[in-house]
Amino acid sequence: MKNTFGNSIALTLFGESHGAYIGATLDGLAPGIAVDEDFIRTQLDKRRPAGKISTARREADAFQIVSGVFEGKTTGTPLTVLIPNTAQHSKDYFATRSLARPGHADYTAFEKYHGCEDYRGGGHFSGRVTAALVAAGAILISALREKGVVIGTHLLSCAGISDTVFGDVRANVEKLNTLDFAVLDSDRGEQMKAAIEAAAAEGDSVGGVLETAVIGMPTGVGEPWFDTVEGVLSHALFSVPAIKGVEFGDAFGMVNGKGSDYNDSFYMIDDTVKTATNHNGGVNGGITNGMPILFRCAVKPTPSIFKEQDTVDFIKGEDAVLELKGRHDPAIIHRARVVVDSVTALALADLLALRYGTDWLGE
Amino acid sequence: MKNTFGNSIALTLFGESHGAYIGATLDGLAPGIAVDEDFIRTQLDKRRPAGKISTARREADAFQIVSGVFEGKTTGTPLTVLIPNTAQHSKDYFATRSLARPGHADYTAFEKYHGCEDYRGGGHFSGRVTAALVAAGAILISALREKGVVIGTHLLSCAGISDTVFGDVRANVEKLNTLDFAVLDSDRGEQMKAAIEAAAAEGDSVGGVLETAVIGMPTGVGEPWFDTVEGVLSHALFSVPAIKGVEFGDAFGMVNGKGSDYNDSFYMIDDTVKTATNHNGGVNGGITNGMPILFRCAVKPTPSIFKEQDTVDFIKGEDAVLELKGRHDPAIIHRARVVVDSVTALALADLLALRYGTDWLGE
Amino acid sequence: MKNTFGNSIALTLFGESHGAYIGATLDGLAPGIAVDEDFIRTQLDKRRPAGKISTARREADAFQIVSGVFEGKTTGTPLTVLIPNTAQHSKDYFATRSLARPGHADYTAFEKYHGCEDYRGGGHFSGRVTAALVAAGAILISALREKGVVIGTHLLSCAGISDTVFGDVRANVEKLNTLDFAVLDSDRGEQMKAAIEAAAAEGDSVGGVLETAVIGMPTGVGEPWFDTVEGVLSHALFSVPAIKGVEFGDAFGMVNGKGSDYNDSFYMIDDTVKTATNHNGGVNGGITNGMPILFRCAVKPTPSIFKEQDTVDFIKGEDAVLELKGRHDPAIIHRARVVVDSVTALALADLLALRYGTDWLGE
Amino acid sequence: MKNTFGNSIALTLFGESHGAYIGATLDGLAPGIAVDEDFIRTQLDKRRPAGKISTARREADAFQIVSGVFEGKTTGTPLTVLIPNTAQHSKDYFATRSLARPGHADYTAFEKYHGCEDYRGGGHFSGRVTAALVAAGAILISALREKGVVIGTHLLSCAGISDTVFGDVRANVEKLNTLDFAVLDSDRGEQMKAAIEAAAAEGDSVGGVLETAVIGMPTGVGEPWFDTVEGVLSHALFSVPAIKGVEFGDAFGMVNGKGSDYNDSFYMIDDTVKTATNHNGGVNGGITNGMPILFRCAVKPTPSIFKEQDTVDFIKGEDAVLELKGRHDPAIIHRARVVVDSVTALALADLLALRYGTDWLGE
Repeated sequence: MKNTFGNSIALTLFGESHGAYIGATLDGLAPGIAVDEDFIRTQLDKRRPAGKISTARREADAFQIVSGVFEGKTTGTPLTVLIPNTAQHSKDYFATRSLARPGHADYTAFEKYHGCEDYRGGGHFSGRVTAALVAAGAILISALREKGVVIGTHLLSCAGISDTVFGDVRANVEKLNTLDFAVLDSDRGEQMKAAIEAAAAEGDSVGGVLETAVIGMPTGVGEPWFDTVEGVLSHALFSVPAIKGVEFGDAFGMVNGKGSDYNDSFYMIDDTVKTATNHNGGVNGGITNGMPILFRCAVKPTPSIFKEQDTVDFIKGEDAVLELKGRHDPAIIHRARVVVDSVTALALADLLALRYGTDWLGE
Repeated sequence: MKNTFGNSIALTLFGESHGAYIGATLDGLAPGIAVDEDFIRTQLDKRRPAGKISTARREADAFQIVSGVFEGKTTGTPLTVLIPNTAQHSKDYFATRSLARPGHADYTAFEKYHGCEDYRGGGHFSGRVTAALVAAGAILISALREKGVVIGTHLLSCAGISDTVFGDVRANVEKLNTLDFAVLDSDRGEQMKAAIEAAAAEGDSVGGVLETAVIGMPTGVGEPWFDTVEGVLSHALFSVPAIKGVEFGDAFGMVNGKGSDYNDSFYMIDDTVKTATNHNGGVNGGITNGMPILFRCAVKPTPSIFKEQDTVDFIKGEDAVLELKGRHDPAIIHRARVVVDSVTALALADLLALRYGTDWLGE
Repeated sequence: MKNTFGNSIALTLFGESHGAYIGATLDGLAPGIAVDEDFIRTQLDKRRPAGKISTARREADAFQIVSGVFEGKTTGTPLTVLIPNTAQHSKDYFATRSLARPGHADYTAFEKYHGCEDYRGGGHFSGRVTAALVAAGAILISALREKGVVIGTHLLSCAGISDTVFGDVRANVEKLNTLDFAVLDSDRGEQMKAAIEAAAAEGDSVGGVLETAVIGMPTGVGEPWFDTVEGVLSHALFSVPAIKGVEFGDAFGMVNGKGSDYNDSFYMIDDTVKTATNHNGGVNGGITNGMPILFRCAVKPTPSIFKEQDTVDFIKGEDAVLELKGRHDPAIIHRARVVVDSVTALALADLLALRYGTDWLGE
Repeated sequence: MKNTFGNSIALTLFGESHGAYIGATLDGLAPGIAVDEDFIRTQLDKRRPAGKISTARREADAFQIVSGVFEGKTTGTPLTVLIPNTAQHSKDYFATRSLARPGHADYTAFEKYHGCEDYRGGGHFSGRVTAALVAAGAILISALREKGVVIGTHLLSCAGISDTVFGDVRANVEKLNTLDFAVLDSDRGEQMKAAIEAAAAEGDSVGGVLETAVIGMPTGVGEPWFDTVEGVLSHALFSVPAIKGVEFGDAFGMVNGKGSDYNDSFYMIDDTVKTATNHNGGVNGGITNGMPILFRCAVKPTPSIFKEQDTVDFIKGEDAVLELKGRHDPAIIHRARVVVDSVTALALADLLALRYGTDWLGE
C-alpha cells in the first residue's frame, strides 16, 4: 500500500518538497474528535527548524484542514490536511541534479523512478513531507490522550552527549511534551545544541538516539505474528528520515546477558499486574502488558554535509565530486522527535482500532 | 491483517504448539516455481533443536504440502504446508497455567484472549509455529536464489562471544547457508556452544545478535514512505520470537559519529554504481541501492529459565513463585537464524512482486 | 490479497479438488465464540450433493479444525479447518486436459498459470473448495446469530420456476435455515427439482436467482466510498461459482421507474426509524439503515453439460469438439445457497468488526 | 481500508460537497506516464451537469494536481488532485438538516457518524466527490489506453428508452468516448433527454442501465477466489452513487435458460482463442479470457425529487413531511457513465499491476 499506513485507521502521505502542497489524509477516524488547531500548530513548531542548529529554510507551516472536520470536530470521513510550500529555492538543486548525495535517496530514487522523480529539494523524500505527518499525527495524539494514552520522546543522546534516563516515566513524558528541545536534563540539552553548532561550523552533521515512552496503553493490544506491537511500530518508525535502527526495551543491551538478568518478573499492586523491571519495553509476545511501551530509535548523522564528497554522476555514469550548497540541517534528531511521536500515535491508534473498533477513539 | 504478512505475496500462519497441526499458506506465488522438498527439509533441520544446546523436544518436522503444488512445481494458487504436532506433553503445562512466565506471552495472551487461549506449550506463541514459516520460506528462498537474490545470516555474537564480521559478503553468505550452526569462525562457534551449555547447566539462558546479508537485490526496490525496505523487513522480523531490536547497516554504531564519517560515498566500477562503505546497509531513503542489504537483530536471552522467579498468578490475582519444568531452550539464536532468513525472503519477495508483478518470481 | 478476503476478520482459502485437502483459515475471530461442530456439519450437508439433482460425487465432507479452537471455543488465534479429499477419480480428467470446457475456467487458468495449474476436477476453481468456505462460514453465522444478525437465502427462481417472495422476512429467514432445499413454497420447490432432473436427463443444466435477507444488522455499518455494504458483499459474492450478477433491493427492477416510485419513505415506530418499502435493500449511501439487507444473485446455468460442444484444444491451438464425462451437477443453485450465506457472514462480520472491533463478536 | 481502493495501485478519496476541496490521491502509479490535463478536463466535462437535464449547480471543476507530476509526467510518487468547491449554497441545507431524504444517506450518515457529519449538500456522500474520482481516473484511462486497454460505457437504457446494443464493440467503444451523452443511437438519446426533462418538469427523476465494455484486456488477469474480476470491479462500481446492481455478461438474462444456451463455445482465429458468444462477459472463473469485458450497472432513479415525501425527523424522532428545495439532478445516469469508466480503470489497473507489477503501466 506504499504511501498509506494502517488498516482500520490509515494515513496517506503525498507531496514533494517543491510542489504546490504536501499533505496527508487520515481515514478511519471516529466522528466527534475535537480538532485543536492550536495543538497542531504547537506540534508543527516542534518540527520546524529553529536557530543555528537547523536549516535556514523557515516556513510558517501554515496548514489547512480541507475535509473531514465540521464545526471543530472530526466528521468520521477522511480528514485531509494541506501545507503549502512557500520557501522554494528550486534553482539550488538544478546544478547537482545527477550527482548522488551520499547517504541520500537521489540515486535510489533515480533507479526506482527511472529519472522521472521531482528531484528538487529531495522531492517526495524530503523531510518536509513529515510536516503533514505531524499535523495529522497531532489529531491522533490528542485523541489518544483523551483515552489515557500519552506519548513522549526525548533525545537520549545526541552527538555523543547523553540525557538522563527516564525515571518517573509518567511525569517525564508529560514534561517532554512541553519542551521544544526534548531533553530531561536541560544542561545536557545545552551541550547537545553546542555540539550541533560546532558540527555545523565544520560543515558536518551529527545524530543520536531518540527514546520514546508510551503510557496508558491497555493490556492485550497487538498480535502474536506479524502485527506485533514491535512490528507495526517499527514499520512506521523506519519512515522517519535518518532512523536506521529501532529497539524495544533494552534489546541490544540484553544480548550479552542471561535470561535471569532480563526476565521482567511480575508482581501485583492495587489489583494490577506490573513488572519489576521493563527490559521488554512493555511488550511480551508482541502484545502490550500494561507497562510503558519503551523504544529507542537510532538517528544517523544527517547526510547533508558541506564537505567535499566522492560520488557519481548517475546520468553520465562516471565518478564525480560533490560540494553541497543550499540549506541543510546539521542535525535533525531534535526535529525528528515529534515525527516519531506522530507515527507512534498512528501505529498505536490503528492497533487499538482493530481490537476496539474505529468508533472507540471518539467515544 | 494480523497473522498474514504481505500484499502481492502473502503468508498466513496458523496453529498452536499442542494442536493437531501448525501450518502456513503462501498466496501470490508465481506458477512454475520448482518445489524442492529436500531443501525444505534442510531448512527445517536448521531450525530443529539439536544436541545439548537445545530443548529436549525433538520432532521430525514431517511436513506435507497439501495445496498449490502439482507435479513438483507451484501451481500459482495458495500453497499450504502442514506440520503435524507429535511430541506433545500437554500435561507439563497444566500445573502452571495461570502463572505468568516472565518474559513470555502468558499474561499478555490472557489479557488479549480473555482466558480462551490454548496455553499449552505457548499455544500460538510457541516458537514451534516458526517451523511452518521456515517450510514456506524455503520455497521463497529457493525462488529468490533463481533470481540472484541470496540471503545469509550468522550469529554475530552469542553469550558475549563474537563471530568475525562479514568480509567477502558473497562468499560468506554462501558458506553460511551450508552450516547448521551459522558462524564464520568455527572456533568462535564452539565457544558459543560451550557458553550455551554452561548457561543450560545453570538453568539459565543466553541471547545474541544475528547479522544478515542479502546479495543480488535489484536497485530501486522499496518505497519512500511506510513501505521502506527497513520498515517492511522489520515488521516481519519482530515476529521472530525473542527479537527485540533491528538495525540496518551500522545504525546504533553511527549515532555518536559525524555525517562525514558515515556517508557512504559512491563510485563507478564496471558501469555499476557502488558505495565505498555500507554503513546504510544497502538502503537509501527506504530503497535498495544495489549494495548488500545488511541488518542485525538483537535476540534477547531465552525467557525460559529453570531458576525460581517471582511472578503472579493472573487468575487468582496474587503474587506467586514460578519454577519451570518441561523442555526449554537455553538459547534459540542458532535456531532463529533460519527463521530470520525465511521472513526476510517473504518481505523481499513481496516488495519485488509489487514492482515487478507476481509472475516475475516464476519467470 | 487474492485468496484472502477481509481486513479485521479475514478468511484465506486454499486447496484443489484432487489435492490432499481443501481448507480455510479464519483470522481475527474474537476469543470465546462457541464452535458448534454439529452446526458446521448441518451447513456442510446443505452444500453436499444429494439425490438425482446433483453430481454423483458424494463425500462425507469430514472436516477437522486444526487450530484456533480450544475446549470448544475459539481462542482468538487463526482457526483453520481442513477437509480431506477422498472421492477422487483423477483419471477422468486426463483425457480432456487441454480441451477448454465452455463456461469453465480451464482456458483462463491455463493463461494465468502458464499450464502449471492442477487441472484435475477444476483444481482450485472447483466448487468443492466452497466446502471449506461453508465450514468456516458456519462459525461466523453462529456468532452473528448470537448478536441478532440472521442470514437466510432462498431460490427465488430456478429453471424458470419462481418461489414466493419474502413476506414476513424474519419468520421466513428462520424457516429457510431449517430447509435442505431452500424455498418458501415447497410445491414450487418440487417443480424446481423436477425441472433440474429433466435438464439432467437431457445432459443439460439450469440456473436461477438466489435471494438473501439479513435481519438484525445494526444501523450505520458500511462506508460511503469503496467499502460500501454493497461493494464489500458483492466482492465476496462473485467468488461463489456461477454467480454473474448481484443486485441490492430492486435494482434492475427500478431502472425504468421514477424516483417517486422507489424512494423508500421513512416512518417512526416504537422509537425506531423504518422504511415503508425496502427498494434499496436496507442500504442507503453504502450504509445500513436498519431494514433487512436484501440482495439477489444471478446464478448462471451450470456450465458442465453432457452435450457435444465446440471448443479449442488450447495446447495444440486448434478447434476441437468436447463431450464431457465424469460427475457433474445439472444445477448448483440449491447448493450455492449456503455458500452465499457463508460469504455474506464473512463480509458482514468484517464490516462490523471494523466499526466495533474484533473483540465485539465474542462479547 | 474504507475510502481507499486498490492494493498495488490505490486511490484515496476525500472531501465534502461544501468543504474547501474535494480530492483524490493515486498511489502506485508508474513513473513516466504522460499526464494530459486536457483529457482530464474532457472527462470532467462529461461528468459536469449540463442543460435542463442536470442540476443547476455548475462549477468549473477547476482541478489542480499538487503532487506526483513533474514536467508533465508522473513521478511515481502519490499523485494528488484537488478540486475546489466554489458554488456552495450551504444555507439551502440548514432547514432540512434532520429530515432524512428518502433514498439518500442522511439518516444512515447520522447513525454512522453520530450527528457529527457535514450534512451540507450531502457532505462526503455528495456525487460531487466523484469529480475527484474522474480526474484521477482520467490518468489511469489514458495510461491503460497506451497498453491497448480501452473502456467505454453507454446508456443501455434510460427512463425506459433503450439504446441499441453493442455491435462492433471496438468501434462503438471508441465512438462512445467522443460523446457527451453516451448513446450509440443518437435518436434514442434525444428521446432519453426528453424523458429526463419531462420527469424534471414533474419534480421527479429517472434511472436506467449503464453498459460498459472493456477491450484489449490481456488474458489471465484476475484471481479465482475473492479477487475475481467481477468481485473487484463490482466492489468499486457500487461506490458510484445510485448504482444498486451489477451484472457481468448476460447474468440475470441467463437464469431461466439452459447451460447449452449460454456456454460460450471457444474457437481459434488467427492463433487466438475467442468465444463465439460472450454471455460470460469476458470472464471465466474470475479471470479474463481475452474477450471484451462486458457488464451492466443498474442506476436507480435519482432520489432527489421535488414531490412531497413522508419521512422522519431523526433528531426529534418523529414523523415528518419533506419538500426538497435546492439544486438536484432529475437523472445522473448520463453523468455517472464517466464515473463508471473511472472506477473501472482503477480496478483493472490494480489487477494488472498485481500480475505485471507497478512499473508495467509506465513502460
